[in-house]
Amino acid sequence: MKISELAAATGVPLATVKLYRREGMLMPGQAISQTQASYGPEHVERVNLIRTLSSLPGYSYNVLRTLFGLVDDETSPVYDRVVAAMQQLPGGQLADSGTDRAQAAVHALGVNANDSDAAMPQLEAALAAAEAVGLRLTPERLGMYWTHIQAIAAEEVAGMDEHTDGKDAVQYAIAGTAIYEPLVLALRRLAHQQLFNAAQH
Amino acid sequence: MKISELAAATGVPLATVKLYRREGMLMPGQAISQTQASYGPEHVERVNLIRTLSSLPGYSYNVLRTLFGLVDDETSPVYDRVVAAMQQLPGGQLADSGTDRAQAAVHALGVNANDSDAAMPQLEAALAAAEAVGLRLTPERLGMYWTHIQAIAAEEVAGMDEHTDGKDAVQYAIAGTAIYEPLVLALRRLAHQQLFNAAQH
Repeated sequence: MKISELAAATGVPLATVKLYRREGMLMPGQAISQTQASYGPEHVERVNLIRTLSSLPGYSYNVLRTLFGLVDDETSPVYDRVVAAMQQLPGGQLADSGTDRAQAAVHALGVNANDSDAAMPQLEAALAAAEAVGLRLTPERLGMYWTHIQAIAAEEVAGMDEHTDGKDAVQYAIAGTAIYEPLVLALRRLAHQQLFNAAQH
Repeated sequence: MKISELAAATGVPLATVKLYRREGMLMPGQAISQTQASYGPEHVERVNLIRTLSSLPGYSYNVLRTLFGLVDDETSPVYDRVVAAMQQLPGGQLADSGTDRAQAAVHALGVNANDSDAAMPQLEAALAAAEAVGLRLTPERLGMYWTHIQAIAAEEVAGMDEHTDGKDAVQYAIAGTAIYEPLVLALRRLAHQQLFNAAQH
């Protein structure tokens, strides 16, 4: 399809689709003349993904350009690209320095993690904040979180089996993290509201 | 203690403590003269809380003034203040209009929720985003999330029993949501990283 048809198919204004292309977030179509290219279903999917992610806090065009660069870079191993994408994903408050609390926490959980795990500075920041306001995070409480969150992650990853090729794996890791994080938080707030209502009535 | 001692006790610069006071986020001390007031441990706790929350994305002084106004407003019922605080908490992407998807989801979960629940527009936005990028959220998947997240919330609320008076309940609801959300997300990213590492090696 032509770029104008891509715009029509996604409901995204043509000027915006062109901007996505210019910013390098949307991969090129197949050239059919010096001035025209042909776009396929993968472009429809990408435009939808760019539009949705760019509406989330922290997902600037700069960030998205980096993330989709990793999706599209088929010369690097999938593993490296997923790890790099996780490191570029916004959303996490990061600790300024050190990961002492995070290291102690993962040790208590029996998890092997190292500082290059993108989640570690994020975990450190969360633990430091809890400590600063006097919310004690006992090993039992931490273990409780970990049990449930591990179970969630295992089910999520099991649902990823259909995405076997490298491009899909990287894209799924990005979309799954970006899209499901707000869902997890919304459900947690809903659960709290329900428990709070139940306690009052 | 004097305000300078409050600054020393918290490690927050005196000018910043004065700013917290001026902005109405820090409650007044007990007047001991026309120009001096005396501050206690509750002020130390509040300064620590302001400093930590204001470092999180979305927690502007404006937002914090509203939130602490609810904590300190002892004339309104605790229930109303907690609900209002949850509605003012930043972090959630909110749907522009409607909560059709969220209503269908809570119905499938057997949850009684109404549109005034602050989590509903947030849930709607998360579900709309998943739909927009073609991530199908089956009732089974939704039920899986809900089972684990409900269990987490129940344990969190059980840990709240010690906070019985109204001020603490409102403050705990705010701090617990603000502080533990990044923790939940960091642990989820860590769990994904672990599963991904395990699959590669």
